[in-house]
Amino acid sequence: MFKINDNYLKLPGSYLFSTIGKKVAAYKEANPDKEIISLGIGDVTQPLCPAVIEAMHGAVEEMSQAATFHGYAPDLGYEFLRRAIADNDYKARGVEIALDEIFVSDGAKSDSGNIVDIFAQDNIIAVTDPVYPVYVDSNAMSGKTGDYLKDKECWSKVIYMPCTAENNFVPEIPAQTPDIIYICCPNNPTGTTLKKDELQKWVDYANQNGAIIIYDAAYEAYISEEDVPHTIYECQGAKTCAIEMRSFSKNAGFTGTRLGFTVVPKEIVSQGVTLNSLWARRHGTKFNGAPYIIQRAGEAVYSPEGRAQTGEQIAYYMNNAKTIRDGLTQMGYTVFGGVNAPYIWLQTPDKMKSWDFFDLLLERANVVGTPGSGFGPSGEGYFRLTAFGSADNTAKALDRISAI
Amino acid sequence: MFKINDNYLKLPGSYLFSTIGKKVAAYKEANPDKEIISLGIGDVTQPLCPAVIEAMHGAVEEMSQAATFHGYAPDLGYEFLRRAIADNDYKARGVEIALDEIFVSDGAKSDSGNIVDIFAQDNIIAVTDPVYPVYVDSNAMSGKTGDYLKDKECWSKVIYMPCTAENNFVPEIPAQTPDIIYICCPNNPTGTTLKKDELQKWVDYANQNGAIIIYDAAYEAYISEEDVPHTIYECQGAKTCAIEMRSFSKNAGFTGTRLGFTVVPKEIVSQGVTLNSLWARRHGTKFNGAPYIIQRAGEAVYSPEGRAQTGEQIAYYMNNAKTIRDGLTQMGYTVFGGVNAPYIWLQTPDKMKSWDFFDLLLERANVVGTPGSGFGPSGEGYFRLTAFGSADNTAKALDRISAI
Repeated sequence: MFKINDNYLKLPGSYLFSTIGKKVAAYKEANPDKEIISLGIGDVTQPLCPAVIEAMHGAVEEMSQAATFHGYAPDLGYEFLRRAIADNDYKARGVEIALDEIFVSDGAKSDSGNIVDIFAQDNIIAVTDPVYPVYVDSNAMSGKTGDYLKDKECWSKVIYMPCTAENNFVPEIPAQTPDIIYICCPNNPTGTTLKKDELQKWVDYANQNGAIIIYDAAYEAYISEEDVPHTIYECQGAKTCAIEMRSFSKNAGFTGTRLGFTVVPKEIVSQGVTLNSLWARRHGTKFNGAPYIIQRAGEAVYSPEGRAQTGEQIAYYMNNAKTIRDGLTQMGYTVFGGVNAPYIWLQTPDKMKSWDFFDLLLERANVVGTPGSGFGPSGEGYFRLTAFGSADNTAKALDRISAI
Repeated sequence: MFKINDNYLKLPGSYLFSTIGKKVAAYKEANPDKEIISLGIGDVTQPLCPAVIEAMHGAVEEMSQAATFHGYAPDLGYEFLRRAIADNDYKARGVEIALDEIFVSDGAKSDSGNIVDIFAQDNIIAVTDPVYPVYVDSNAMSGKTGDYLKDKECWSKVIYMPCTAENNFVPEIPAQTPDIIYICCPNNPTGTTLKKDELQKWVDYANQNGAIIIYDAAYEAYISEEDVPHTIYECQGAKTCAIEMRSFSKNAGFTGTRLGFTVVPKEIVSQGVTLNSLWARRHGTKFNGAPYIIQRAGEAVYSPEGRAQTGEQIAYYMNNAKTIRDGLTQMGYTVFGGVNAPYIWLQTPDKMKSWDFFDLLLERANVVGTPGSGFGPSGEGYFRLTAFGSADNTAKALDRISAI
């Protein structure tokens, strides 16, 4: 008789964005004449830039002729893409990453979910709170998180590191030593960042304690301030303790195009084995590469035209962020983020519950955002708005919020 | 101190195709003037068909305009593709599969590797021997296979079901009852098939014993005989015991384009939970969909033009298969497969070891194939050739083999 993985049964039922979806659908049905503006889910709205479109058309043509057709891709991804990554994301910032330390994938969500495979079940993980749900759920599925405590809305074996206005969204070293530490910087959902010296403390801590940092840099392209690290490998010693994940979703609008990569330095060793070799084995066994056409699209992001055009898109979204930040500030809200990230994290007025503020915004302004408590206990009393809408909708949403 | 998943350390070192690659590279270096023909790895060589190319160009254009741009895809895949699958692969064969039982993915390799996630660690798996290595390796990585016994080249807790000329490549019901049974039909590597009544026995057995069948139908498009099932759901009762995996790699040349799907019927229930809901949860948490452009490409495979054009490609490869089959038979070889599958499985002459025959073919004919023993102990004394080369190369390879 087959048995299911009953760790899945411990997962709390409903996913944040499906709950939001249901609430919005119910409101629309009751109010069919209202026009809703969504600044909720972190999905982009601007089209792929011309350089990427041109590269994809070219790659599609290649696939139409036997002489230029591409079958199975190399395990780690095409060298043309890994070289562009190594040169532009790392060498240009003074960091040497070897081509066989870069693993091209179908996106950072897959990688951050799958990376748990190469770690033993009895590792203790630490996450910032609030947090991107995939880190916790993927560990829960593989039995690394203990039991879910409904009353506290947290897992018994997970170390939560609160990030709130009180500590300026900088996690403190926890009392219990974790084995695996998840850091997302610039942060989803808070839109805040760690400065280089703050991140260096975590790298030093990980090296001193034999911990691994899983560093999610999906929002790197939005960094505008000088002292915020673009890669964790800018920190001394990070190559012996940190895995870095990157995405093309937010820097080039690839949410529906799917491309990302993970860097696993060969210096990370345990039991005489490199993590790089374990991830290579997983990659080679359970994955067959991102499509050739999409890898060519990724390469085009690094061309001079691609960089200029995606830069314009990021500026467009960051202008929205400024609109939201400035508008809310003028209304008297306390806001965070939106300077090095496309997310604005606001404190709800009068310590209103996150879900109550969600209802207020939906009903009185017809604007959809994301309740902070959906990202973890320390998100209660906060609310996330994204800068990924159109400029017109963003301005209109702000007008409506100010009219409440 | 973080700990690695030490199940990975049990995996035998070298992957079959990397060993082959090294041997070929060494031969080429020593013999730079020789022209090698590869009938080894199961990768296609014909370009994508015009209907698919046209669909992809169209989808690329859609991605270039805000009004038609696509961000994150629906969790299960776009409905246009799932509907095409339900109608063409199932309804047309008298099988009703609901749209929410179809999960679109980046390919059957990912799905067959990832499906282990939703099963408990203490399930006993059964595989046919020889076997596609991913089934075993993915279970080994999650600790379901016991220890690797080097002398026997097998895992202590895996049930191996020999498929050889002696039993006409039809696995027998094993003495020990398995929990999860992997069946690949038409089979990789042997190119043989089960007839409908033979598969029905396995479905009945699974239902009687509470076992799950993971049915890999990646080569379905190559079936030419009447009594071979195109889907396991043609068998009575399969919906309560079978998961089916499909790929666009071999029916439409998508090895470098990446698209597949898995069917998980809602009738499969354990501990009051449907496997469908568990797979949906995994899919939603650790995956973010196949690219929009590629899903449109998949849809085009089902259009009248797409069906006609991919049909021609399959006929082209199957003509190669006939060339290999007939040629080897005339030379006195005993051959199997190649009628309902693009693989020819030959018995080595004089019970030569598979790897010795590999060396012979490489050195004397400059032809690369795959040693049967690389797929499992019962593959010893067999050798795989694929029909995925060009017609010219296939004919040339046969001439060279006959000249040995």
